[in-house]
Amino acid sequence: MERFKLIIQYDGTEFSGFQIQPEKRTVQGELEKVLSFLVGEQVRLYASGRTDTGVSAFAQVCHFDTDKVVDAKKLEVSLNGLLPADIAVPSVEKVGMDFDSRFTAKKKTYQFRFYVSRYELPLLEKQAVRINHYADITLMNEACKFLIGTYDFSSFVAAKSGKTDFVRTIYDAKIVEIGDGIFAFEITGNGFLYNMVRIIFGTLLKVAYGKMKPEEMKSVIEAMDRKKAGKTMPAKGLVLKNVVYDDQN
Amino acid sequence: MERFKLIIQYDGTEFSGFQIQPEKRTVQGELEKVLSFLVGEQVRLYASGRTDTGVSAFAQVCHFDTDKVVDAKKLEVSLNGLLPADIAVPSVEKVGMDFDSRFTAKKKTYQFRFYVSRYELPLLEKQAVRINHYADITLMNEACKFLIGTYDFSSFVAAKSGKTDFVRTIYDAKIVEIGDGIFAFEITGNGFLYNMVRIIFGTLLKVAYGKMKPEEMKSVIEAMDRKKAGKTMPAKGLVLKNVVYDDQN
Repeated sequence: MERFKLIIQYDGTEFSGFQIQPEKRTVQGELEKVLSFLVGEQVRLYASGRTDTGVSAFAQVCHFDTDKVVDAKKLEVSLNGLLPADIAVPSVEKVGMDFDSRFTAKKKTYQFRFYVSRYELPLLEKQAVRINHYADITLMNEACKFLIGTYDFSSFVAAKSGKTDFVRTIYDAKIVEIGDGIFAFEITGNGFLYNMVRIIFGTLLKVAYGKMKPEEMKSVIEAMDRKKAGKTMPAKGLVLKNVVYDDQN
Repeated sequence: MERFKLIIQYDGTEFSGFQIQPEKRTVQGELEKVLSFLVGEQVRLYASGRTDTGVSAFAQVCHFDTDKVVDAKKLEVSLNGLLPADIAVPSVEKVGMDFDSRFTAKKKTYQFRFYVSRYELPLLEKQAVRINHYADITLMNEACKFLIGTYDFSSFVAAKSGKTDFVRTIYDAKIVEIGDGIFAFEITGNGFLYNMVRIIFGTLLKVAYGKMKPEEMKSVIEAMDRKKAGKTMPAKGLVLKNVVYDDQN
């Protein structure tokens, strides 16, 4: 048995999320279909984590196991030739059986991409969510500081989440300009709750629009009450930027 | 009679270029239709210059004249409400009759957007042209330096151009990273010949792929021969970034 690690990029717009589901177009579904064909047996793919409907990934990490003889470089080229235009696999490599895309992941970074404008702008609208022109990005950045640390983040979890452990560690959170009028709220943590990044961004918007002071972010976290946080922002702005593992893998 | 200056952003993908043409969907056609409706008379729009089929603009500049009473801010809001999603008008303002979007323009900057990858990447493909993974960007940047100055650029003009004066001044030319794996060849000049930026980028690619030395750019310019330059790159990568005028206008 050998294990292979894949780095996957996808545009989430036309997918019902990452996880395979009957009758729906999913990233896992499309990948397993092409992978199974190329490897010559039914392949099961494991990812660092699921992404929701409409969420994109710049560098999602997955792995699969097989007893078949697989040349990683040839598989990489063939995958990119056969996959639909909204999925690419920039890298396939053989890894040790101790690598696990989900359980050995140490940090993940998500971006919520936005632009600041009175009107929808055609060159930005497809890649980012518009926020109003009176948004104050400096205030948003100040509020970001209060997110860094280990907290119970249940104020920022969607009601339908079945998790009972809401404690996560956030290593970094900031607003960055990623080019040509596009900004991103970039957050790195050891894991994220369901809709957490989208709800945090909705809360940062309250700060940006002067409806909440930056330091109030602290009391929103402490409240452990979804009602104290802002609204859930659309999936469109969300991108899984990358996943970091212990070693080079 | 009063004159109004408009800043226009458009995604060129679904347009047969800027200039109005019968039976075709053009930026000027769409704009004049909505403007004429809002102003209450047939309006003729003048731009800093045309852009070809498939070319986008981040900030194209136009003007129009009217005898009607027009409130610039109200017109701006109404235009953005009525225009299709691939055109926006971030700014409308009243200007003096001495402003002319075409004849008082001093500098224009174009970007040719690209990314470097062995495979097509879904999050980058819509905004940029892929070039091969072995491209050397440092060499491209070195070649850019030879473009700066006042030269006859007839080596970089499409055969069908009817112009007889091929002398242009290039103020700046460089490769910049505009974010998330996307680069741009950014060139500023007092004007550009037909297909000039796309042909220059095709020539820079020869340098990037090791088929031409950076300093050979000088002899390609001096040759004044289209055959010495590289191929014409696709319109998709080209964006009119901005137009600079003498004063605040």
